[in-house]
Order: sequence, then structure tokens, then C-alpha cells
Amino acid sequence: MSNEPIRKTEVSCLGERIRAAAPKLAALTDQEKSRVLLAGAREMLAASEEILAANREDLERGRKKGLNAGLLDRLALTPARLKAMAEGIRQVAELPDPVGEIISRTARPNGLVIEKVRVPFGIVGMIYEARPNVTADAFALCLRTGNAVMLRGGSDALQSNQAIVESLRRGVASCGLPEDVLVLVTDPSHESTREMMRLSGVLDLLIPRGGAGLIRSVLENSTVPVIETGTGNCFVYVDDTADIEMAVRILENAKCQRTSVCNAAESLLVHRDVAAAFLPKALAMLEKNGILVHGDEYTMSLSPAVVPATEEDWGREYLDREISARVIGSLGEAIEHINRYHTRHSDAIVTGTPENGERFLREVDAACVYVNASTRFTDGFEFGFGAELGISTQKLHARGPMGLEALTTYKYRITGDGQVRG
Amino acid sequence: MSNEPIRKTEVSCLGERIRAAAPKLAALTDQEKSRVLLAGAREMLAASEEILAANREDLERGRKKGLNAGLLDRLALTPARLKAMAEGIRQVAELPDPVGEIISRTARPNGLVIEKVRVPFGIVGMIYEARPNVTADAFALCLRTGNAVMLRGGSDALQSNQAIVESLRRGVASCGLPEDVLVLVTDPSHESTREMMRLSGVLDLLIPRGGAGLIRSVLENSTVPVIETGTGNCFVYVDDTADIEMAVRILENAKCQRTSVCNAAESLLVHRDVAAAFLPKALAMLEKNGILVHGDEYTMSLSPAVVPATEEDWGREYLDREISARVIGSLGEAIEHINRYHTRHSDAIVTGTPENGERFLREVDAACVYVNASTRFTDGFEFGFGAELGISTQKLHARGPMGLEALTTYKYRITGDGQVRG
Repeated sequence: MSNEPIRKTEVSCLGERIRAAAPKLAALTDQEKSRVLLAGAREMLAASEEILAANREDLERGRKKGLNAGLLDRLALTPARLKAMAEGIRQVAELPDPVGEIISRTARPNGLVIEKVRVPFGIVGMIYEARPNVTADAFALCLRTGNAVMLRGGSDALQSNQAIVESLRRGVASCGLPEDVLVLVTDPSHESTREMMRLSGVLDLLIPRGGAGLIRSVLENSTVPVIETGTGNCFVYVDDTADIEMAVRILENAKCQRTSVCNAAESLLVHRDVAAAFLPKALAMLEKNGILVHGDEYTMSLSPAVVPATEEDWGREYLDREISARVIGSLGEAIEHINRYHTRHSDAIVTGTPENGERFLREVDAACVYVNASTRFTDGFEFGFGAELGISTQKLHARGPMGLEALTTYKYRITGDGQVRG
Repeated sequence: MSNEPIRKTEVSCLGERIRAAAPKLAALTDQEKSRVLLAGAREMLAASEEILAANREDLERGRKKGLNAGLLDRLALTPARLKAMAEGIRQVAELPDPVGEIISRTARPNGLVIEKVRVPFGIVGMIYEARPNVTADAFALCLRTGNAVMLRGGSDALQSNQAIVESLRRGVASCGLPEDVLVLVTDPSHESTREMMRLSGVLDLLIPRGGAGLIRSVLENSTVPVIETGTGNCFVYVDDTADIEMAVRILENAKCQRTSVCNAAESLLVHRDVAAAFLPKALAMLEKNGILVHGDEYTMSLSPAVVPATEEDWGREYLDREISARVIGSLGEAIEHINRYHTRHSDAIVTGTPENGERFLREVDAACVYVNASTRFTDGFEFGFGAELGISTQKLHARGPMGLEALTTYKYRITGDGQVRG
């Protein structure tokens, strides 16, 4: 052994600490885990003043740095927002615990009994942007399912996150659990994020929450299994037999209710046989809502406000008051176009022909496919999960809105009386 | 647009072709998919002579290159092996099709009906070593579940694989399906493997099958979601109340029956209170089976044949006639040791104390945990799945032996009558 001191990074130290602490959490009962969440919520509210003071410093730094109004708003905490965060933790505490469920049980001819049982992942990593509410949320969802969690929030929210995490850790400790079931990476360097993505021996799962850039970077660099969330280039297709009023209403909801969310519509396809009846009404509604339309030639011919769509527009997630629009010859063409350009998040058909609805549901390759309803319903709460960890756009493990179950895995428990393999 | 010709790689061309073909496969019924498998098996047998001739050329090249006997044996095909491969395809054709299963169905208060339905992944990539039987196996498992598959086998088996894939594609075509639901990468460069690992827009899932080096390389480089398979550093722990005869029998089966497989035992832990009674018998049995023991001091004191174990030995997957052995003070210590050094594959306790068995099942963090049975049972056929895609050692999506279900994902089908979100 050499005598040179080995410089340990923050991430590797946190990795050792969380690894030692995690088994204690996995062994808790349903009720014990609820109690930890409630204690966390209580301590967080008790620390409101420190948290708000820390947040003011983050905001001050953010303003000096020139963060835009949207980012500052997402960063800002208020007493009301803190209360909502605590309430969110309490709601998760009341959800049923998926851990321990016996998924299946088989007795084999040789007498072995094989049980497939739901268990926590173990240690979950979460990398996200400067939104301190995600910190409380991640704590609640992960600990509710018996998972220890390593957080790395955006550096613009560092002081807020430190204050929140300290308070939550006090709650954890008050239940007799090691505080290190919740750790926060404070090193703001990109190197620390990269190190976290390579922590395969420690993290069982890594979830990036944030914009497309963050998610791409995690997918590119992680050796830890990742759940990809978020990007939504969602389509609304209006079929030839659509109820025109319904189609306008669904489009308005999908595009205009909230434009910055991943389940908002970004593209409109219209069957040519209904274009003359539907598009003028749709364009009037979109204009009234201040939505810029990138359209094909036919759509442009209907209004001078429509700008030309390029090939790129079909694949764009605007997350803004913009939409692309195109007239199309058939349902089959619509399905082909959608499967080519969408992000497999949520797509809807408005149709009066049940078989067309059925074909759309079957052939469109998205996490959520809708007949005669708005894409905005793609949401854990709207699906009745009582919580939402994000919306998965990959197909491995979890797809679409993820509730608590997505934070669990399973193990096989096999009991015998001396069986050996022949 | 520039006039310069764009040089397309083989992988990107195959990607375009498989993407065009895959939806046709996903739309097939259970029976139609079975028919494709049977046609593939038939055409493969009909092409026996070409396949065996191609295999002879691979073998000849392999011998010249100096491949060792083990590799040559895994590469070699015989009429009997080809028949077994065809029989394997036929057996998969008879398994129940998991696609289409309605996993859950909820009617929401607003009238939306949300169905969670099992669907194929779409396009699966498989990277494996020079074992031509995996080619037939991957075809059967993937197509049975409606997935198109892009194969990249070891370059030493290239001609065999080309001949097998050509015959299987003839079977596919004879059912009126596009042949390109099954494609083989023939470019032997590392660059082509790397490109396949980055084919995120095309492949929905990538499964490496082979040694630890291959799997590590895929985990390091892939942007496509991966299922990690294979590495098994499996433990047998003999508790103080173990039935000695049973413990020797289980250890013999776990270590000696087949040493080159991932579910073979690689390490033995013995409670100190049973060491004097158990270890001499165990060592005699291991010696008789020609197994080299890397032991701690106590184990070494019992036989001159035992060599000293180093720290490294606890974490080693020998895949050979070797085992590490250590006496330990308590069940808790055993669990801690196992969770530190194992690969989370399969671990067993032999005990006469049910509570100790229960604690072992709960606290050992492995895909398969056993009480009083051999780790060798970790196998899709032994579990009654009727097929096996490999044994997952990750926790995302699938854990332990994977049957057909592991090759499926789900989608949410939501039907309404005009609902919009409030």
C-alpha cells in the first residue's frame, strides 16, 4: 500500500455513506416509512425561515447572473409554496406502499416455491434543474418506496436545496434512521454530475428531470440505468368523421391550456376531407389564444397569420405559443407521420369512426394514445396514481406517467428443502 | 442541399430498413407470429448443408487464428445441434404470447377509460459472441413477442450467422412479411458495434449476451436502454443450524455440476459454530471434484490443498474449478459480506432456522435468493418460463431469469368522448 493520501471526491464519499445507510431504510415497514415522510414535512416547515433566507440568496445570485424571469420564478420559494411542498410530502405518505406485494407465486414440480416480490430499487439518483420543489418531491417519492436518494439539483438553487435537505434529514434522524438515506451533492462542477452518472456500483437507477439538454447528457454519459423523462412532441389528428366542435375543444385544451408542459400538443394533423370545415374554426381559436401556426400551403391559404412550416417543424417541441399544422390524405398517412416525428409521449385522434380510433390506438407507438380526449391528461394525478415521478418516454421498465410503483423492482424468493438441480 | 454523396454505413442502412419493416410484425396476431417461427425453423433445417458448410469455414478460420478449444466448441455446429436449434424455435412458437394482455383497466370519474396493455418493444438489438445458436434463439424470442431484431454476433461466427439468418429470412418472407424484421450486421469493425449502441432513434432495447467484457463495453457506450445480463458471483452460506449433509449436497450441486455458468457458486461462507463439523466434509467433496479452494486461515488449517484467499477472491467470478471459502461470525456478517461482494445474481443460505432463512431472503439484495436449495435453479426453464432470454443482474425492467414478457413493454390506451382537462 502506498502512503500517498487518496483524495476522495464528494460524490464518492456520499456514495459510501448512502450505501451504508440504505439497507436500514429498505427494512422499514409501510407505517414506519410514512412516519419518516411526515417528520420530514414537519421539520421542513419548522425550518421555513432558514429555507426562505437561503432561497433569497439564491435568487439574488440568480438576478445578478441574469437568469430570465421564468427561471427565477421556478427558483423562487414563498411561504405558500413551502406549505404546498409539505402538503405534497404528506399526501405521498398516505399513498399505499407498493413494496412487499407478492406479484406471483409458483410451486414447481420439484417442490421449490418461487415468489416474485416487489422490493425497493435500493439507491436512486436524481439530477434536476433549479427547482427546489423537486427536492421535497424526490425525498417523498423515494423514501415512501424504501429507496435512499442522492440528489443533485441545479447549482442556482444550491443554498435553497441545502436548507431543505438539512431540514428533511433532521426529520429522518428524528425517526432513528441514518440521515444518509438522503444526501445532496453540493459540488457545482460538471465533473461531479459526470461522476454521479458513472456510480454504477452505488446507484441502482438514475432519473434526470428537466429539459431536453439535461436528459440527453444523462443518456449519453450514464452507466447507471436511466429512466428518460419528459420530452413531448404531441400530436392531435382530426379524422374525416370528427365532431368539429369536439375537435376544436380538444385542440384548444391540448395546445392552449398550458403551453410549457410536455403533454401539450405541438402539432396538428387534419384529414383533407374535413379541412375546409375544421381548419378555419381551429385557426380562429388558435389566433384568439395567441398561438403562432406553422402551416402547410393549404393552412397558409386560410389565414395570413400562418407562417410556412419547414420539415423541422414537424419534429419540434415548441413548449410555447406555437404549433405546426398539416393537412393529410388518410389515417394511415397520419399514423406514419406521427410515428416518424413524435417523441412517443402522447398523441390523440378525434374521430367519429370507432375502427379508426382502434387502429390509431394500436398503430401509434406512444406511451399514451387517446381517442376523443386531450393529450393533457397524461399525468400521474389524472391517471389516479396519487403521485407522479415524471413521464417516461422510454419503453424499458416504465412508460408514460410513473407513480410509486416505478420506483420499485422485484426479487425472486425461492424456498426449498434441499433441492439440487439434476 | 449539397451534392456530395453521403456515405451510409451498414448499420444506418439496416436501421432504416428494420424501422420500415417492424410495424408489420407488431400488427400480427399470436397465431401469425407462431407461423413465422415455424417457417423459420423449417427453412433453417432445409438449409442445413449451406449452414454447416459456412460453419466449417468459420471453424477453419478460427483454428488458423488460434481460437481455444472452448471457443471452437461453442462455434461448432453439427446436424444434431442444428436440429436442437430448430426444436428450440418450435418450442418458443408454442409458448403463450404475452402481447395484448390488458394489465389494468380504470374508468376515471370524468369518464375516461384508461387501459394499460402489453405491447412489443418494437426493435430489439442483440450483441453477442461467436455462438451461432444464439442467432436462432434471438430470432425466436424476439419475433414471438412481435419485435423486429437487429443482430450482431461475434465475427468469428460471421459466415455461420449469415447462412442462418438468410434461411430464417426466407421463412419470414414465406409468410408474406418483410424480411427486414430480422437483420444481421456483417461489418466486423468495432465501429459498427459502437454505432449500434448509439442507435437510439431506431433500437428500443439492446441486450448484450456474453462475457463480462462485452457487457461492460455495452453499458459504457450505449445510449439505447440496456438490459445487463450474466455476471454471477454467487454465494452459498451455511448457517449454524444447517443440515450438514444437505449443505454438502447443495454446495456440490452449486459449485461442481457446471462450473462455467453464471448461476454456479463462486464463494462459500460458513458460520463458525458449524465450521468444524461442515468444512472437512465440504473440502473432501470439493477435492474429489477437483475444485481449488481459496480459503481463510481456518479453512487452510484443515487441508494443505487450500490456498490463501485474498480480498480480491471474495469478488471473483471464477467460472472454473475454483471457489473461495471463509468462516464468518454470524448471519448478519454473512449478509453484509455477500451484499458487498456479490453481483446480485443468486445467493443461497442453508439453515435449519426458518427466521434466519426469512432474514436472508429479505436482506440479501440479489435477483434470486434461496433457502435450502441450489443457486443452479436460476434459469428460465427451471422457473417454468418455457424460454430464457438471459438472466438480468440489473434492477430496471427485468430482474433474474427473463422469459418472453421481458421483451414486452406497455402502452396506455385512453378513450373518451371529448374530455378536456380542467
